[in-house]
Amino acid sequence: MKIIVLDGYTENPGDLSWGGLEELGEVTVYDRTAYEESPLIAERIGDAQIVVTNKTPISRQTMDQCGNLKLIAVLATGYNVIDTAYAKEKQIPVVNVPSYGTQIVGQYAVGLLLEICSHYAHHDQTVKDGRWENNQDWCYWDYPLIELSGKTAGIIGLGRIGQTTARIVKAMGMNVLAYDIRQSEEGKEVAEYVPLERLLAQSDVIFLHCALFAGTERIINKETIVRPLGCMP
Amino acid sequence: MKIIVLDGYTENPGDLSWGGLEELGEVTVYDRTAYEESPLIAERIGDAQIVVTNKTPISRQTMDQCGNLKLIAVLATGYNVIDTAYAKEKQIPVVNVPSYGTQIVGQYAVGLLLEICSHYAHHDQTVKDGRWENNQDWCYWDYPLIELSGKTAGIIGLGRIGQTTARIVKAMGMNVLAYDIRQSEEGKEVAEYVPLERLLAQSDVIFLHCALFAGTERIINKETIVRPLGCMP
Repeated sequence: MKIIVLDGYTENPGDLSWGGLEELGEVTVYDRTAYEESPLIAERIGDAQIVVTNKTPISRQTMDQCGNLKLIAVLATGYNVIDTAYAKEKQIPVVNVPSYGTQIVGQYAVGLLLEICSHYAHHDQTVKDGRWENNQDWCYWDYPLIELSGKTAGIIGLGRIGQTTARIVKAMGMNVLAYDIRQSEEGKEVAEYVPLERLLAQSDVIFLHCALFAGTERIINKETIVRPLGCMP
Repeated sequence: MKIIVLDGYTENPGDLSWGGLEELGEVTVYDRTAYEESPLIAERIGDAQIVVTNKTPISRQTMDQCGNLKLIAVLATGYNVIDTAYAKEKQIPVVNVPSYGTQIVGQYAVGLLLEICSHYAHHDQTVKDGRWENNQDWCYWDYPLIELSGKTAGIIGLGRIGQTTARIVKAMGMNVLAYDIRQSEEGKEVAEYVPLERLLAQSDVIFLHCALFAGTERIINKETIVRPLGCMP
């Protein structure tokens, strides 16, 4: 069994082992191949049965040229780099890592919001500059400060990551709306599913936790910001 | 009824109305009086029945000098500026604002932690400096990055604010320990009460959400950091 890793550097810059893969076959790891369509991709896959990719695209043309391909493995959650429709047609399974970073992405997204609400680094710097200790009332803050409790979060894409974010902001006292093409029981426990136009109209904050598909590409754009979708002609 | 506000500026720098108090009596508002013991405090209270303070201390001596005092109102949650033992002895009720800022303090405290975990402002600045767009793998972060899920938060003081923080970090997947001299049913729903020495020994992060009392002053000190209290002679 030949296994080709096209762009191993991002996932494993040297601090992880490829041993698990090596037990399955003859592994060749390239640090990088190409992040856009290139003849080098098919050339490197050659007659391998398994290709492992992170951001290197696997197109219809590459699949046609690599006749031995039996599996495409994506070392990421999003798999928009794969022409999955054509892989299905050719009966080549595509696997991804659906629960990669579930907790940390939710945590990180909420932290981005909190930075906007309270400007931690700005306060850190200005407190060190003496603006608290020199305040005659022993009080110091800079505006704007935003309290999230009672406000509304809209989550586009209520998969595992979206649900993590939903749980955190709900614990902060926010109302949580969600839009997803699929609704789940787990999702209903942490958010209220609503149509996209209602989410856009009522949310104070919007989290984008959807994968990149044709249906989600540019889902936030000038039209959705200027006027909710529901008002569009 | 005479009502004296000793240090109104912090609470109301001009954007709020004192109208509610004015309906109750003759109100005199001083922007500031003194943030440490001073003869000016008793002088300004004079023969008033009600004194309203934020950070100006009301000492035994002041209470003795102001014989008409019937109520001490603190425009804050913490009331360590009042000699409450002596007020009790003199049968002067002391009131505070126990639910002031419950949600925002929990939100703010978690945001401080998230800034340490992910350095938002640093990443903001360095991304603007081009470190993401110039990265050949379209990947960029600086270490350290800390995932909170699975780690342990210790909350000292599991009152309303402590419970808010507990709910948020629990939603992030943290184990939550708490130490408090009083235990409540609400508290048990969001944290596991443990002795202080166990909290200090097992927590990756400690939140201080206790009021300032004799028993909590300097509760975090060289000894508690160097070796948990349980090991102290």
